[in-house]
Amino acid sequence: MPDDAAVRFLKSLFAAATAAAAPARCLPPHLPHERTGRLLVVGAGKASAAMARAVEDHWPGELAGLVVTRYGFAVPCQRIEIVEAAHPLPDASGEAAAAAILQRVSKLRPDDRVLALISGGGSALLAAPAAGIRLQDKQALTAALLRSGASIHEMNCVRKHLSAIKGGRLAAAAWPASILTLAISDVAGDDPEVIASGPTVGDPSTCAEALAVLERYAMTVPTRLRARLENGELETPKPGDPRLANSEFRLVASPAMALAAAAVAARAAGVTPLILGDEIEGEAREVARALAGIARSCARHGTPATPPCVLLSGGEATVTLRGKGRGGRNSELMLALAIALQGQQRIHALAADTDGIDGSEDNAGAVIGPHTLPRAAALGLDARAALLDNDAYGFFSAIDGLLVTGPTLTNVNDFHAILVS
Amino acid sequence: MPDDAAVRFLKSLFAAATAAAAPARCLPPHLPHERTGRLLVVGAGKASAAMARAVEDHWPGELAGLVVTRYGFAVPCQRIEIVEAAHPLPDASGEAAAAAILQRVSKLRPDDRVLALISGGGSALLAAPAAGIRLQDKQALTAALLRSGASIHEMNCVRKHLSAIKGGRLAAAAWPASILTLAISDVAGDDPEVIASGPTVGDPSTCAEALAVLERYAMTVPTRLRARLENGELETPKPGDPRLANSEFRLVASPAMALAAAAVAARAAGVTPLILGDEIEGEAREVARALAGIARSCARHGTPATPPCVLLSGGEATVTLRGKGRGGRNSELMLALAIALQGQQRIHALAADTDGIDGSEDNAGAVIGPHTLPRAAALGLDARAALLDNDAYGFFSAIDGLLVTGPTLTNVNDFHAILVS
Repeated sequence: MPDDAAVRFLKSLFAAATAAAAPARCLPPHLPHERTGRLLVVGAGKASAAMARAVEDHWPGELAGLVVTRYGFAVPCQRIEIVEAAHPLPDASGEAAAAAILQRVSKLRPDDRVLALISGGGSALLAAPAAGIRLQDKQALTAALLRSGASIHEMNCVRKHLSAIKGGRLAAAAWPASILTLAISDVAGDDPEVIASGPTVGDPSTCAEALAVLERYAMTVPTRLRARLENGELETPKPGDPRLANSEFRLVASPAMALAAAAVAARAAGVTPLILGDEIEGEAREVARALAGIARSCARHGTPATPPCVLLSGGEATVTLRGKGRGGRNSELMLALAIALQGQQRIHALAADTDGIDGSEDNAGAVIGPHTLPRAAALGLDARAALLDNDAYGFFSAIDGLLVTGPTLTNVNDFHAILVS
Repeated sequence: MPDDAAVRFLKSLFAAATAAAAPARCLPPHLPHERTGRLLVVGAGKASAAMARAVEDHWPGELAGLVVTRYGFAVPCQRIEIVEAAHPLPDASGEAAAAAILQRVSKLRPDDRVLALISGGGSALLAAPAAGIRLQDKQALTAALLRSGASIHEMNCVRKHLSAIKGGRLAAAAWPASILTLAISDVAGDDPEVIASGPTVGDPSTCAEALAVLERYAMTVPTRLRARLENGELETPKPGDPRLANSEFRLVASPAMALAAAAVAARAAGVTPLILGDEIEGEAREVARALAGIARSCARHGTPATPPCVLLSGGEATVTLRGKGRGGRNSELMLALAIALQGQQRIHALAADTDGIDGSEDNAGAVIGPHTLPRAAALGLDARAALLDNDAYGFFSAIDGLLVTGPTLTNVNDFHAILVS
């Protein structure tokens, strides 16, 4: 496939994946059939504003509430208040929103109904430190863990135990009202207690585990905080806690659903899809080398798939920062893949965050092909040096390899597609 | 599948893979039909003794020659001399063997015939420093490169340019005799110029590239050596060199053939095989995380394969040494996989070097399953700590997880099989 056609094809798969996870499409079927009466809507995550809008569009009854989303991810709503806040590091806006949400769900009665709209990013956006913990301490720990290469599961275990709202605490606060959670998963395994740190779901992790994570990555833990983790004072509600008895959880979109939609789109275009899974983890540059090997095998041996084929995967690679450049994990994965493939003909690839923002820059991800390294070389750009400096953004920016979509208003984690044509 | 049955099944796949690459089986069909007359046999690699034996068993004509193999990989031969030498770091025995081989092929006439038996490991075993280079300098650079995480391609580019025998120089020395190379590949892509550093094949890599590798990994290069690389004095014969005109190359076994044989064995046992490829590279512990994601996807979503299935792959992961433990890349990959899978039920795996020796210990690799972490925990063993210390050998030794086969007398690189039952 020529470069242009390959890039267009890969972008169409990404569009199919994100469209399948768009709240307007995936949320309404999961709303209760009985749509009268008053509903208090709360929520957090990159998709939460679009989810609130989908609720408004399909709920004729009385609605009130507040959801918090990332800056740039708001959509106009009439009856539900939309608050924007910072991600991945929490800010005062997120803190105020979390406090407001906790305040609104407290003092409800057994016949009150709460709808919680939860999606990825909600963990950082619902910044409510547990009583006695300073936001700045929580922020410093979160930032240090992000830099350390800790997995998202490890991050969330810690965040839950420092929080007044995560790890089932939101549902516990809403008790005895009934609470229905509609969730869009951005995590491997789609575990309810992991998505946005499970604010409405019992938390099987413990204070002891949170402490173990902090020690594993050699974090500096304030003495008083350590004591409260050690004595279990910060323990979260566990599965089976009676305060969670009126809480129901429904998954409305997931990484696997998005990959399946991309597979359908690929097949319709005459390209055989092979879904490697929605749980690809590992250091981005090394994951890229493993994926390069699988793609080369398709090209050389016709296994695990016969060209024209596209290897689809999702999950969340990690980047251990070593350099001073810019760029998220998907862009870095693409840079490392381009290096591993060494300009191999007939292999193109796209990796992007399905939320539309890869890390801290304005791009969703990047696209590569046989042209990538030659184009960079023509500009005097050294791909290996860019990778060593974690500067995938600068690299792809210079060679017009960025994928820029703007916020997609949903979030089903990362999306990788490698086309072998 | 119960633990015992799963482990037996995985071991049977490894046996099928190595049997398919055994010289006695794969070499004879590639010998010339005309098997009379005198043949000078030379060779190097972990399979070279077994290859020599296969030649003896199928060559009624006059045979003479010398091959060098790794300590422990010799087999009795009648007419071809077998020399054992050190691997992966060359020693004086390999140096003497290489010098003897060069001496025997020089001064041949156009009607003389040489058979070169080449297999993985030959690069280290054919230790013949280029004129004016000291073996100890070459050894020090090789050892430092091995520690640095350089790829096998990078290693070999350097070794070729410091050698009197690699990178086509053996064939050039044998000119004007004709030379037939029978090779067993242990490298991704099966490139003739890469297998054992291509002693009989024109070398597309250059002095400048060798220097770039040394600089990439910040190696200390003696001034005189640097000068000879810079002025091209150490340049290898290039493809098309007239001295290589009488040289023919045939691949008799490869990683892909071994994986295909394992796939046949799996299918015969009612388990669906999916070959992910023979070119899996990357840091072992990160490759393990990516493979764990693919295996989990099989278990949860039935994609890329539906259980009972086995993911087969080969290639060569790398280990960047950080700790002081023992263990090769396959054992380390298994340790990291066990950690990534967290005792997940119904997933077992085996990774091993097809030569039977994973690194420097006595094991071929290791086997894991849901029992691995609990068994270690019961002994007070910390899997993460073992991984941080690069001590996969110690870990698996303690929990009876080592795969010990002894030398297999062939070498088609690494073999990974992940069973999802």
